[in-house]
Amino acid sequence: MNYVGSAAVEISAFNFVPDFALGLVRDIRIRWACEEIGRPYKTRLIDGATDRPASYIAEQPFGQVPAFWDGDIHMFESGAILLHLGEEDERLLSAEPVRRAQTLSWLFAALSSVEPALMNIASIDFFLSGEPWVQQWRPAAESYASQRVKAVSDALGDSEWLAGGFSIADILMVSVFRNVRHTEIVTAFDNLAEYVKRAELRPALIKAVTSQAADCGKPPHPW
Amino acid sequence: MNYVGSAAVEISAFNFVPDFALGLVRDIRIRWACEEIGRPYKTRLIDGATDRPASYIAEQPFGQVPAFWDGDIHMFESGAILLHLGEEDERLLSAEPVRRAQTLSWLFAALSSVEPALMNIASIDFFLSGEPWVQQWRPAAESYASQRVKAVSDALGDSEWLAGGFSIADILMVSVFRNVRHTEIVTAFDNLAEYVKRAELRPALIKAVTSQAADCGKPPHPW
Repeated sequence: MNYVGSAAVEISAFNFVPDFALGLVRDIRIRWACEEIGRPYKTRLIDGATDRPASYIAEQPFGQVPAFWDGDIHMFESGAILLHLGEEDERLLSAEPVRRAQTLSWLFAALSSVEPALMNIASIDFFLSGEPWVQQWRPAAESYASQRVKAVSDALGDSEWLAGGFSIADILMVSVFRNVRHTEIVTAFDNLAEYVKRAELRPALIKAVTSQAADCGKPPHPW
Repeated sequence: MNYVGSAAVEISAFNFVPDFALGLVRDIRIRWACEEIGRPYKTRLIDGATDRPASYIAEQPFGQVPAFWDGDIHMFESGAILLHLGEEDERLLSAEPVRRAQTLSWLFAALSSVEPALMNIASIDFFLSGEPWVQQWRPAAESYASQRVKAVSDALGDSEWLAGGFSIADILMVSVFRNVRHTEIVTAFDNLAEYVKRAELRPALIKAVTSQAADCGKPPHPW
């Protein structure tokens, strides 16, 4: 599909994020996918420092980013939006049924079997680190996270990407892995360290994190 | 689509689950969807009490249930499998683009914005309850979970289902809500208490939980 001349999709994003979150916010997943296929997009910036207005809650029930608009189509949740974009372009999601099924399995695995374990680590280290009890939780949380990450490492083996060629499953898994870039939970596995590096060399991801940082008036987070 | 005479899909399930998990395990989501559309299915039982064999890890990288087979198609992750079944039957997922987009948004929201918050409560109450520090975590975890559940309550309003008619988004959201059936986190919201009750009256869910319990040699968990 050729998007030259097609109307830009719109993505909501914050006009401010703390430095530790630069390059990690979920609208990046959508920017990245759009950059991969040359789909034009523009951002609707919302104020990250204050309560969301009711008009935004009507668009994104949890007050998070991203919300997404593509003509008549309105969506929220990064996984759903990636699926929508993937269905329009085989560079993101193969239409071949067996490979499509495998890609969708990994797309959901990144969100459902991996991300919650890694977000607990991010919560402990960034949001709850002042709580006296939280360091007692961390070893168990890290052990659980490592176990989930190891399962991905074992499944990936020496393949380049999770489901045949590059896909929305890799966009999501790499984005999820980057949430714990301040730890060695992922990079402890050589093949995953290389997998993330391979993704981070893609021009589309570099453009995505650069444009997110620019929307916050900041330079991108160093890799 | 008429499945009479079509080959049964296969779903992996445990041959044992502890009583508190009866009616909650993730294969139920798939059984429920199959029952809604009259799609025949059979279960491949795996031993829930011992380590998973390597042959199963090859089918389900995290060693969880469900894995799923439909002819050539092999999948894992309940969300992905529900999507696959939904694409075959409009009673589970509308093909109308605007409504489909809304349904997919809620499908992912259940898994990504709601389930992790509720699973933390289930972990605290069922798996970590003996840890001395965990009760210090619970108030914050409950407050976060309630905030996510309130967002669903506000969005549902007085609608019957999340995205127009009944869909895979409701199968997933209700299944996620049932993970905290031992608390009042969901039932504190009248419209959600009724929403769950509405789902629990569906013959397809009743058949699904009954068949899961039967695979474990037990009667179903009382409602």
